Amino acid sequence: MEKAQIGVIGMAVMGKNLALNIESRGYRVAIFNRTAAKTEKVMADHAEKNLVPSYTLEDFVASLEKPRRIIMMVKAGKPTDMFIERLLPLLDKGDVLIDGGNTFFGDTMRRNAKLDESGINFIGMGVSGGEKGALEGPSLMPGGQKEAYQLVEPILKQIAAKAKDGEPCVTYIGPNGAGHYVKMVHNGIEYGDMELISESYFLMRNLLGMSVDEIAAVFEEWRHGELDSYLIDITADILTRKDDLGSDKPIVDMILDRAGNKGTGKWSSQSALELGVPQSLITESVYARYISAMKDERVAASKVLPEKVNAVQISADQKQEMIEKIRQALYFSKVMSYAQGFEQMRVASEKYDWNLNYGELAKIWREGCIIRAQFLQKITDAFERDPELNNLLLDPYFTDIVAKYQTAVREIAALAIQAGVPSPAFNAAITYYDQYRSAVLPASMIQAQRDYFGAHTYERTDREGIFHYSWYHEE
Amino acid sequence: MEKAQIGVIGMAVMGKNLALNIESRGYRVAIFNRTAAKTEKVMADHAEKNLVPSYTLEDFVASLEKPRRIIMMVKAGKPTDMFIERLLPLLDKGDVLIDGGNTFFGDTMRRNAKLDESGINFIGMGVSGGEKGALEGPSLMPGGQKEAYQLVEPILKQIAAKAKDGEPCVTYIGPNGAGHYVKMVHNGIEYGDMELISESYFLMRNLLGMSVDEIAAVFEEWRHGELDSYLIDITADILTRKDDLGSDKPIVDMILDRAGNKGTGKWSSQSALELGVPQSLITESVYARYISAMKDERVAASKVLPEKVNAVQISADQKQEMIEKIRQALYFSKVMSYAQGFEQMRVASEKYDWNLNYGELAKIWREGCIIRAQFLQKITDAFERDPELNNLLLDPYFTDIVAKYQTAVREIAALAIQAGVPSPAFNAAITYYDQYRSAVLPASMIQAQRDYFGAHTYERTDREGIFHYSWYHEE
Repeated sequence: MEKAQIGVIGMAVMGKNLALNIESRGYRVAIFNRTAAKTEKVMADHAEKNLVPSYTLEDFVASLEKPRRIIMMVKAGKPTDMFIERLLPLLDKGDVLIDGGNTFFGDTMRRNAKLDESGINFIGMGVSGGEKGALEGPSLMPGGQKEAYQLVEPILKQIAAKAKDGEPCVTYIGPNGAGHYVKMVHNGIEYGDMELISESYFLMRNLLGMSVDEIAAVFEEWRHGELDSYLIDITADILTRKDDLGSDKPIVDMILDRAGNKGTGKWSSQSALELGVPQSLITESVYARYISAMKDERVAASKVLPEKVNAVQISADQKQEMIEKIRQALYFSKVMSYAQGFEQMRVASEKYDWNLNYGELAKIWREGCIIRAQFLQKITDAFERDPELNNLLLDPYFTDIVAKYQTAVREIAALAIQAGVPSPAFNAAITYYDQYRSAVLPASMIQAQRDYFGAHTYERTDREGIFHYSWYHEE
Repeated sequence: MEKAQIGVIGMAVMGKNLALNIESRGYRVAIFNRTAAKTEKVMADHAEKNLVPSYTLEDFVASLEKPRRIIMMVKAGKPTDMFIERLLPLLDKGDVLIDGGNTFFGDTMRRNAKLDESGINFIGMGVSGGEKGALEGPSLMPGGQKEAYQLVEPILKQIAAKAKDGEPCVTYIGPNGAGHYVKMVHNGIEYGDMELISESYFLMRNLLGMSVDEIAAVFEEWRHGELDSYLIDITADILTRKDDLGSDKPIVDMILDRAGNKGTGKWSSQSALELGVPQSLITESVYARYISAMKDERVAASKVLPEKVNAVQISADQKQEMIEKIRQALYFSKVMSYAQGFEQMRVASEKYDWNLNYGELAKIWREGCIIRAQFLQKITDAFERDPELNNLLLDPYFTDIVAKYQTAVREIAALAIQAGVPSPAFNAAITYYDQYRSAVLPASMIQAQRDYFGAHTYERTDREGIFHYSWYHEE
């Protein structure tokens, strides 16, 4: 029997769609699933496709041409380790095993090192774009052995989303865990983008008293400006949708305000904390989801805790102006979020020796993934102007944006606090900006306190060295 | 030779001071250090004390009465594991080994379980109060086997700090890692308190244009009011101190604004993220230290990034009023920080089955430790009124405080944003308050987006169940 050029393990929707995507580019694709039923279902639904089903891992591996190329689309964690363990005795040196799951980058580093001992290549690949993306063209973030990447590059380039200039949304990210790390930060940035949109929506509703229809029209307009992005697109669409279970209300009013999460935003914040990177906007977005999930507690608290807000009067004349200020605040805050995310990747790249190419990362996010946006081209441009750029804010385009929009974000954030409309991501954005641009911060007081109670020492402003003050007695 | 009643391993300053503290209560104390020189130095400096030096672990263990009680005051991490490994064959069932280092609670859980297999009791004990506290009376947070705690309770109660009502600042915290967990949150809260003080200082300086001497006088006044606490005390003192290297400037102006950290605040935030608890104030305080540490980057950025702030004019008449508002904002924010910290401990207690007693925790922090404050009695009172209290804010005393002070914190936080004076912890405080008291948050938009791009489903406001909307086509 003719061998398959690549195999996919895991026939849940992501794995199935990825297999169909690859097949559609002219490849013969071996497929396997832990339970036979799912494989049978795929074969029944797609009998005409060039798929090779197997019902044992031995048959699956035997059906592949060498060096074997296998993509695992299984649940992150133990199931992934289980499959690796079962596959290991069946594989040969030079084979390429790809984990396309939402795996913690540390696990990928561990697995890459372990398999490398047996000469098996292991790629951890971030796959963004959801079910639709997997089928029609995702953004792909593969990390692992460079030579292994080259063995799958032609396929990955064919199945990936294409940017408007035709470039496929995939590139070699870096060694071992680099791909999953970048995917993790991508997801963190996604949390930030979603939080910023929801805060903008909430401010229009609660500060400007706008209806859902009016807000839908605003997002529809924003879609066509510099905020143009997938998440703004779907927000505009969501706001036009009515309840599907009979009431005449907007669906957004029927959905419970209790946000879930799959953990990648959390990982991103935990890693930033580990690396010493101030990643406040994403972290506030993660916390915003957590506090939203405490629905019962909030409802109870809302009946007990006093609201003393300072009345904010917005006249009809000011409304248009305020909407524009919210738009500017959103764009400004998005810039801060990406500045923090790229700073996090830079520090991670240095720590883990990944040699990340930041301009390329922004490029492969232009299509396919959830945060796709025209805005990403600006980031690519910035890193092309200066590949050593420390922080996005220092690029002239972004410096100009923050000059133009900071007055608006200050006003909106201050108004939101006065009016009692919680806007954690907007606040984090302007606060980070003010911290980052401050040559002097009050941390000298913190250092003095640490030296006072713990003899932790401090540096001085006027000379080199480590100093300790005699707080308790004259010496 | 007469046996010692307790032994201390590690003769660095914390271990030495703890040994001297115990000895001063009438105990015979065995001491050991990895290198002999430190032990010899302690013996030379304190020849008259009832200390028993040993120069091998075998002799050290042999010098102790049974069941043996040993406190390790060594570097957290590998050195701790190394000592445990070397001690294990020398110990007998029923002996009590105490780790008094700044250990990650997960390590303590692991070690407790492992030693328990051999019948050895293992206590992870948080020790707060710095060098001075160790010698004169620290706050102690021991967690491990209850019966093991009872074997050391008399000694711990004697060496601990005493609250004004005479109660010793030590209590049994809970099983395995509970003690080190509580110490970790204590340290996170300490980060928050220090950040809030430094922001208050910075606002007086940059918003109100006050001199260091003027600010010192304000803190001196605050010491005698409801903010009365160790950290306010030392801040008042710090602000009066002059440079010790010749200039005539306040020492706080000579100290570089680059804050260090030992990792416990970071752990606290990472754990909150893991547990799903919104712990924004401590996290912003950790990030504030990180961004302070990027001194060179900030100085460079300050020359490039535009400052467009909205002029804030504070007249001389308003100054006193503004100082009082900052004081209220500080107290309000402190309440939010503790509410978050206690919420974190509640969720951890449920997850790890620790059965923490929150009122007792606040009690043992009243003296000895860095966050000691009269304010902690209010927390004890709250949990005595209602041991099942979900969140501090729901206690009448705290509800009253936030009613009284929220107008001030809104005004100060809004002004700080307008004036470009970064106040991350103040912002986090009022934002958390507004989130927590909001029956409705914009997370319905986030759930709609997640369902749109990832079919993640949502709940509804009007009925039970899990729902998915047909975003892509009519069904």
